[in-house]
Formats: sequence, C-alpha cells, structure tokens
Amino acid sequence: MSPSPDTFLREAKHLVDEALDRYLPAEGTGAPQLADAMRYSVMAGGKRIRPALALAACIAVGGEDEAVLPYACALELIHTYSLIHDDLPAMDDDDLRRGRPTSHKAFGEAMAILAGDALHTLAFELVLARTADGNVARRLGATLAEAAGFAGMVGGQVEDIDAGGVVPDVERLQGIHERKTAALIRAAAVGGGIAGGAEDEQVVALSEFGMALGLAFQITDDVLDETGTAEALGKTPGKDREADKMTYVALEGIDAARARATRERDRALAALERLPSPELLVGLAKFVTDRDR
Amino acid sequence: MSPSPDTFLREAKHLVDEALDRYLPAEGTGAPQLADAMRYSVMAGGKRIRPALALAACIAVGGEDEAVLPYACALELIHTYSLIHDDLPAMDDDDLRRGRPTSHKAFGEAMAILAGDALHTLAFELVLARTADGNVARRLGATLAEAAGFAGMVGGQVEDIDAGGVVPDVERLQGIHERKTAALIRAAAVGGGIAGGAEDEQVVALSEFGMALGLAFQITDDVLDETGTAEALGKTPGKDREADKMTYVALEGIDAARARATRERDRALAALERLPSPELLVGLAKFVTDRDR
Repeated sequence: MSPSPDTFLREAKHLVDEALDRYLPAEGTGAPQLADAMRYSVMAGGKRIRPALALAACIAVGGEDEAVLPYACALELIHTYSLIHDDLPAMDDDDLRRGRPTSHKAFGEAMAILAGDALHTLAFELVLARTADGNVARRLGATLAEAAGFAGMVGGQVEDIDAGGVVPDVERLQGIHERKTAALIRAAAVGGGIAGGAEDEQVVALSEFGMALGLAFQITDDVLDETGTAEALGKTPGKDREADKMTYVALEGIDAARARATRERDRALAALERLPSPELLVGLAKFVTDRDR
Repeated sequence: MSPSPDTFLREAKHLVDEALDRYLPAEGTGAPQLADAMRYSVMAGGKRIRPALALAACIAVGGEDEAVLPYACALELIHTYSLIHDDLPAMDDDDLRRGRPTSHKAFGEAMAILAGDALHTLAFELVLARTADGNVARRLGATLAEAAGFAGMVGGQVEDIDAGGVVPDVERLQGIHERKTAALIRAAAVGGGIAGGAEDEQVVALSEFGMALGLAFQITDDVLDETGTAEALGKTPGKDREADKMTYVALEGIDAARARATRERDRALAALERLPSPELLVGLAKFVTDRDR
C-alpha cells in the first residue's frame, strides 16, 4: 500500500532537505555571506512539492527514487531562485516570504540578486555532476532548462508583468500560467519519469499530467491569494488584486476558478491511468488542489 | 599557417554572432520585450574573446570547431548575463556598457533582471540540447556550471563586493580574480579541449593556460580602467578607484600590475607547449594582454 499524500510529502521533504543540506555550500565558506543567503532561502521550509512530484513520477514508472534526487533538488533550487528574484523591489517588491523577511530584506538587494544567480547555476551543476547516467543527466538538464527559461518560467513571468491592468482574456491567461508555473511542474513529472527509465508514451502521459496539474496549482494559488490569510500563506495575501493582476479570480470569480482547478485536476488524474504505479502521484494531485496554503 | 589573432578573432566573432542569432529567440516572439532585451545585450558587439578561446582550444587539440560552437555561444551568454546583473543599480549602477545604455537603462530594472536570468538558462539549454555527443554535453554543462556559480564567477563577484574599501592583500585579490574572471576563461579553454576530444593531460594544460590567462586578462582590465578612455572602452573608466575597489593597480601601482600581467601571460604560454597545435591560442593570449580596450 502507498503512504498517504501527507506521509509521502513529509518523507520526500525529509529526503530532499537532507540532500539540499549536503549540496549547498556550507555556511561561512567561500564567499560566506553568499553561502548564508543561498541557505537562508532554500532552507526556509517550503513544502517541496516539485521535488516530491519528481520522486513520485520516478516511482510511478518503476524507477528507484535515488536516481532522481539531484534533479529533484535542482527543481527546488530553480523555484527558490525565481522566488528571490520575483520578490525584489524592481519586481513584486515583497517583504515577506514563507513567513520570513525576503532575501533582499535580510541580505540587501545585491546579495539577493547574486544568491538567486548562484542557486540558478547550482541547479544545473547538481543535475550534471551528480546524476549517475550521463545520457539521463543531459536529458534532465535540457528538460530543466527548457522549463525554466524563455519558453517557460521566465518568459511567463514577463508575460504576467506585461498583462497587469489589461482586460482579462482566458486564452492569454492560460498561456501565461502554462509558462510561468506549469512548465516547471511538468518538468518535475517528466524528469522523474526520465530518471526512472520511462517509455516514451509514459513520458507523454507525465507531460500531460504535469501541465494540467500545474494549471490547477496556479489557479488554486490565485484563489488562495484572495481567500487565504497571511499566517497560513506565509506571505501577504491580496497582492494580486492590489497589483491589478490578470488572474482567473479576476476573470470569472472565485467559484468558477475553483471549478476550473477541479477540471484541470481531473484531466491530470486521467493521464495517470496510463502509468503502472501512479498511486503517489494521484495523492499529490489531490493534495495540491485541496491545500489551504 | 595559422591566421593572425586579429583575423582569427574576426572569423570567430562572425561564426559565433551568426550562431547566437540563430539560438536567441526571434525579436517580437513569445514575450516580445524579453526577446528584445536578450538580443540587445548579447548582440551589442562584444569581442567574443571567451568563445574564440573555446574554438581555438578545440583546434589546439585537433578537434573540429563545429563541435564546440554551442558551448562557445553559451560562454558568451553567461558572460553577458553577468554583465547585465553587475550593471544593475543595486550592484555597480552603471549607465553605459559597450558604448550603449545598459540593459536596465534601456528596458527597466525588472526586465534587465529577467533578461539576465533567461540568458543564464539559455546557456545551459544550448550546451545540453545542441552538443552532438551526450557525454560531452554533460561534461561541458558541468564545466560551465562550476565556473559560473558559487565556486566561480558569482562567488568571486561577492568577494569582490566584500573587499571594497579593505586594505589590499595580494593573496585575497588573487583569490577574487581567480573566481570572478579567470574561472570562466579557464572554462573556455577546458571546454574547448573537451569538445575537441582532448586527452586528460591536455585538459590539465588547458586548465593551467586558462587560469593564468584569466588572471592576466583581469589585471589588464584593472590597468585599462585606470588608463583607458570611455570611447575606447565603451564604458565609464575610473570606476574602480571611485568605488575604492581592491585592484592590482591599487595594490602595487600601474607598472607593477603591467609586469604581473606579463608574468601570468608567460605562464599561460608555457602551458601551451604541451599541446599539438597551440598557434591560435598563443596569438589570442598575446592579443588579450596587449589590448587597449
């Protein structure tokens, strides 16, 4: 029997936190303030949903989760670097993240920019230097880069900024969400499959699963920004509305957005039926869309 | 007979510029402003010294320069992203770069941060998706990451900031230069060798060459910051002294710094004697230390 999503997330977080602690530069070494700033943001206690998805996807195709651990950590480093840069004064200008001062509040703006840059590079270093199989390492690195860059996360972030104050438009909104958030979540699922030795058609199923779950994840985030509390979220709620951001909530209201998240979640679950051992992924998909923070 | 350094640099620049133009997102596509900002900084007319070193190192061990072209372009993307972020108001606050407004002056701070991030990712995407041999791709990506991250360029940049206003100290200064500038130049030489099928001892020779040349390059930069003109440099001279930066010029004066650059250059040239066809690298090493901009 598979563990419950709560139990699996706890175990995955333990495994990933322990590995991240090994992979990150030790406190006070090299450029000491840089090492501290890198650790401060990575070890701030995220839920490690992306790494957990990669581990679960690896298991879903019959792989050993050890094979995907460096990649799982790399996903978290890319996610963390993007949060540090997004929080900067020139971007979202956020003071609070995961319940603590943001990186630039704690270390200053220059160090926050550089800590983000160093985590960004370290993600690729991990995948390429620590994945056992050379060809798998290359495919994982390429998957990560495609999801993180112009065609994915960074491009989506720019489109999101450009869309501020514009009349909401469902196609444009979906395009933003696909790149800004769903691309990296899809990369978590796809990379987990690649590391686990998935067949091509299994990779396709994981890609469909990841894209749909990524959209459900982002829509849920939009809803929580409207309905959540600072205490539960660990960040300031209501920022989207304040910033006049284009969101599903702004487009169609909270109830319709919740229904849309459920539809995407169900599409994600349907794709999993093509995998041999999808139980953990099923649990995670439900957890992600039912969360309150 | 090998072409002169000037001719080779011109040919290498042509080859690399043409490849970069193909690899960069087309203007006005995806997130249009992001594509424009990426192109603006990459196509601003740099000398392409790092790519030229990679091409020359590949040839020096008997390789075909085609094999190293994606990596050569990736080096330039990493270099360019670092310049964009270094120029930001929170960092060096520079208005002028390669004779044109810096990225944040032209596109705003948020877009400059994101354009740097997108170029950073694209560097790894290029190496991993476009290098023909899978194992070579993995080794090149790992070499690039090690040189660009905490143990290399970004770490050195932080140490350089931390060293501002501190009493100059030759060991500390050399440590900064080794990471901040020389690591990426060494990576150019080493990666060129790897792509060209170098033997292990040839890679060691290229590593020694690259590290010594990188130091010579940075010392020459320090000297030019003191003696060059804005017109020749394409950026504001005298910034180091103004910012009370630790440099070799501040440590021991211009003449001694020049002599030190020559000693490092000679160490670099000595390492090349262990390679079969080092002529282009010899020419580039002389060019780099004799340049006036």
